[in-house]
Amino acid sequence: MPNQRDAAIQYARKNKEKFLSCLKEVLCIPSVSTEPAHLSDMRHAADWVATRLRALGMQKVQAFATPQHPIVYGEFLGAAGAPTVLIYSHYDVQPADPLDLWKSGPFDPIVRGENLYGRGVSDMKGQMTAVMKAVEALYFTGGIPVNLKWLIEGEEEIGSPNLADFISSHKNLLACDFAFNPDSGMIGKNEPTITYALRGLAYFELRVSGPPNDLHSGVFGGVVHNPAIVLAELIAGMHDSKGRVTLPGFYDKVRKLSKEERNELARIPSDEQYYLEKTGAPALYGEQGYTPNECTGARPTLDVNGMLSGFTGPGSKTIIPASAMAKISCRLVPDQTPGEVYEQMKRYLEEKAPKTVRWELMEMHGGNPSISDRDNPGVRAFADALETVWGARPYFKREGGSIPVVGMMQSLLGVESVIGGFGLPDDNFHAPNEKLHLPTWYRGIEALVHFFLNLNP
Amino acid sequence: MPNQRDAAIQYARKNKEKFLSCLKEVLCIPSVSTEPAHLSDMRHAADWVATRLRALGMQKVQAFATPQHPIVYGEFLGAAGAPTVLIYSHYDVQPADPLDLWKSGPFDPIVRGENLYGRGVSDMKGQMTAVMKAVEALYFTGGIPVNLKWLIEGEEEIGSPNLADFISSHKNLLACDFAFNPDSGMIGKNEPTITYALRGLAYFELRVSGPPNDLHSGVFGGVVHNPAIVLAELIAGMHDSKGRVTLPGFYDKVRKLSKEERNELARIPSDEQYYLEKTGAPALYGEQGYTPNECTGARPTLDVNGMLSGFTGPGSKTIIPASAMAKISCRLVPDQTPGEVYEQMKRYLEEKAPKTVRWELMEMHGGNPSISDRDNPGVRAFADALETVWGARPYFKREGGSIPVVGMMQSLLGVESVIGGFGLPDDNFHAPNEKLHLPTWYRGIEALVHFFLNLNP
Repeated sequence: MPNQRDAAIQYARKNKEKFLSCLKEVLCIPSVSTEPAHLSDMRHAADWVATRLRALGMQKVQAFATPQHPIVYGEFLGAAGAPTVLIYSHYDVQPADPLDLWKSGPFDPIVRGENLYGRGVSDMKGQMTAVMKAVEALYFTGGIPVNLKWLIEGEEEIGSPNLADFISSHKNLLACDFAFNPDSGMIGKNEPTITYALRGLAYFELRVSGPPNDLHSGVFGGVVHNPAIVLAELIAGMHDSKGRVTLPGFYDKVRKLSKEERNELARIPSDEQYYLEKTGAPALYGEQGYTPNECTGARPTLDVNGMLSGFTGPGSKTIIPASAMAKISCRLVPDQTPGEVYEQMKRYLEEKAPKTVRWELMEMHGGNPSISDRDNPGVRAFADALETVWGARPYFKREGGSIPVVGMMQSLLGVESVIGGFGLPDDNFHAPNEKLHLPTWYRGIEALVHFFLNLNP
Repeated sequence: MPNQRDAAIQYARKNKEKFLSCLKEVLCIPSVSTEPAHLSDMRHAADWVATRLRALGMQKVQAFATPQHPIVYGEFLGAAGAPTVLIYSHYDVQPADPLDLWKSGPFDPIVRGENLYGRGVSDMKGQMTAVMKAVEALYFTGGIPVNLKWLIEGEEEIGSPNLADFISSHKNLLACDFAFNPDSGMIGKNEPTITYALRGLAYFELRVSGPPNDLHSGVFGGVVHNPAIVLAELIAGMHDSKGRVTLPGFYDKVRKLSKEERNELARIPSDEQYYLEKTGAPALYGEQGYTPNECTGARPTLDVNGMLSGFTGPGSKTIIPASAMAKISCRLVPDQTPGEVYEQMKRYLEEKAPKTVRWELMEMHGGNPSISDRDNPGVRAFADALETVWGARPYFKREGGSIPVVGMMQSLLGVESVIGGFGLPDDNFHAPNEKLHLPTWYRGIEALVHFFLNLNP
C-alpha cells in the first residue's frame, strides 16, 4: 500500500470539519459516571461509541453490561500477519461542577480561538475520537493495516471498579500484542511525548465527629474539641516541613531514581517557570531535593481534594460543627500499592487522632502505579509517527496522573501499553473550562495514521 | 395591691394553653435574619411583635425601619414612681439547616413529651413570649406595676449591625433605670440562674487561594501547595498543645480570675460529667488549668464554625482545589475587643501564611464581652423572684455566649442589664431540634410576674 499513507493523510485533512462535528456530538452527552442522575446519559454514550465502531467496519461490537456502566467492545481482525493492538479508551467524564466557573456550558461544546471547550474534550473524548478518525481515514483509503480490538469503558473517572473483572473474564477476547492508551498528553504543543510511567492512586474519605449535634459555640466553646479543628490538625500533620508525607512507612517502597533517569527527565523542557504558568499558582511548592518533573512524575504525594464542615453559606452561624469531612488522596509511584497506603493512613490516624473525637476512614478507589519498557516495537512505531508529524523526537516522561488500566493490562493480560495522547497541560481537565487545542488534535490524528501504518510496514 | 400577686399567678396558671398557642404562632414565622429569602418573614414577625405589644396596652408601638430588619418599640409609663425597665428581646432566629437532622419541621412547632420543638423556641421567642405573658397576667389583674419600654430587634443572630446606631439616636426614648435581658438561660431545670458576665465575639471568614482553577491532582500534585492543606495548617497552628490560642497577644487583655470568683463559680453544679452529657462529645477538651465552667465562661476560645474546599459531593474527584474557606470565630472575655482580635488574627496570618498561596481575611460581626455588678436593685428583685418560684437562691454564672446588646446598654445608655432566661443547656439552640422545656417556661412566667411586682413593693 505505497500510497495509502498519503491518501489517508489527505482524507484526514479534507475531513477536519466533519471530524470536529463528530467530536462535538459525543461531548453533548453528559456522561458523568459518578452521578446517579446521569445513568441514562451513560447508556446513551455507550450506544454512541458502539455505533461509531460499527461505522468503522468493526465486528462483534457489543456493550457488555457491568454492575454500573457498560464496557463497549469491537474488533477488526482482517490484517493477517500484522500485530493486534488493543485500543483502550473511556467514554465517561468528571463532574462539571463548580458550574458557575464555566464560561460556556460544559455539555454545550463551543470553539473559542484555537480551542474546543467542553467537559471531557481532553479527558478523553477528544483522544478516543482521534483514534476513531485515524482508523476512519485508513478504512476509507484502502483498509486498516493492523488488527484492532477496542475496549472502551465508562467507569474510568470512578476508578474502573468493574474493569479488572471484565478483563479477567475475557482474556481470550482481549488477547493482543500490546495495548494503545491515548489517555495521556503532551508536554506542550510542539513537544510530542510518550509516557512510560504512571502514578497510582489511593483515595480516602476521612470523617471526624464529636458531639452528635452542632453545638452553640458560645455555650460550649472551651470544653469541646472542635471536629473541624481536629481534622485540620490531622491534615496538617500529614506533611513535614520539607514537604514529605508523614504517613508511617510511606516512602519504604518508593523506587529510588537512578542518575541516568534523572538526567533523562531533566531533558524535558518543563522547568519551574513552566509549572508556574500552567498552574497559575503564586509560587511552587514540593518535596525538597527534587525537580518539579520528578515531584509530579516520580515522587508520591498527598492532596486534599475536598473538605466540608459546619456552616458554609453566606453570613455567619456560631456553632461547633458535629463533624468534619475531607477527601484525601495519594498519588503513588512504583512500588507502592493502594492497600499498603490505606494501612499507613489508618496507622497514622490511630497514632495521632485524639480521644476527644471519633473518626472513620473510608477507602474509595485506588490503582497501582506502573512503569514500562521504553523500547519495544509499539513504542518505536509511535515514536516514529510523532517524529514524522512534529519533526522532533518525542520526549519520554513519567506521568503524574493515574491510568489504573495500564497496570491491569500488565498484570491480567501480560501486555505493555503504549501511552500517548494529544491533550496539553493547560487543558483544565477535571476542572472548569476543560478544552482541547484543535491544531494539536488534528496533528494527533495524522500521527495515529502513521502509527498504524508503521506497525505493518 | 395585696392580692394582685395571687391573682396574676392564678391568671398565668389558668392560661397555659393559650400562652402555648401564642408561642406556637410566632414560631411558625421563619424569621431567619441572615437569609435574604426570609425578608418578608422578618416583616411578618415584626408585625406580630407590634400587635402583641399593643394588646398589652403599650403606647407608641412602632416598627422602626433599619437598613435591614425593623426594631419594634413600645412603652407603658403609667406606673408613677416605679422604676422603668427596658426589656430587650430579638424576634430573629438562626438558620434551620441542616434540615435533614430535624425530627419535625423547624417552623412547624410541636410538643413531644415535656418539650416544645421549633427553631427559635429557646433562642429566644420563648423567652420574649414569657415576658409578654407575665405582663399580660399583670395587665389583666390590676395593672402593670412598673414602667416598661420594649426594644425588640430582628438582627441579633447576624450581630445586631444596626442596633448601636438605633440606641445612640434614641437615647431619650430608651432612657431607663436598668435593662432586663432574658436572652440567657438556666444551668438546669432546678437551678435558677442569673448571668453576670457574657463573652464577646469576633467572627471571621478566611479564604486561602492558590491556582485560579481546580487542578488535576495527578498532573500537578507535587508542585502546587494545596490550599485546603494550607488552610488546615493555618487552623492547626491556632492552638498550642495546651489548648491555648496562639494568636499573638490574644491573652494580653484577659482579666485574671480572682480566688473569690473561682470559688463562686465552683459552686455551680456543672462538672465534667455535666458537660459530657450536655454535649454528647466522646471526651472533654479545653485550656489546661481551668475548670469547664471557667473554660466556657471566663476564658476566651477560638472555634471553626464552617469549612469548605473542593469537591464534597458523593464519590470522588481528583483535584487540587483552587481555594479553601473557613469561618472562624473567637469568644472573648473582658477586656478583649473584637477589633484587637481581628488585628491579632491578621498578624498571625501575616506571620504564618506561606508565599505559595494568597489569603484574605474578612471581618464579620463582633461584640464586646461584658461583666456587671452582682448586687443592684434589679438583680435583687429578680433573684428574689426566682427564689420564690424555685425555692432556691439562684446561681450567679458567667455565660459563654455573646449578647452584644448588653455591652451597648452599658456604653450607650449607661445602664446595667439584669440577665436571665428560662432556656436549658440541652435546648439545641443554633442546632437541629431546638426545644424549650415547657414546665420550666411556665415557672419562668410566674417568676417574671414576681419580678415586676418585686420592683414596686
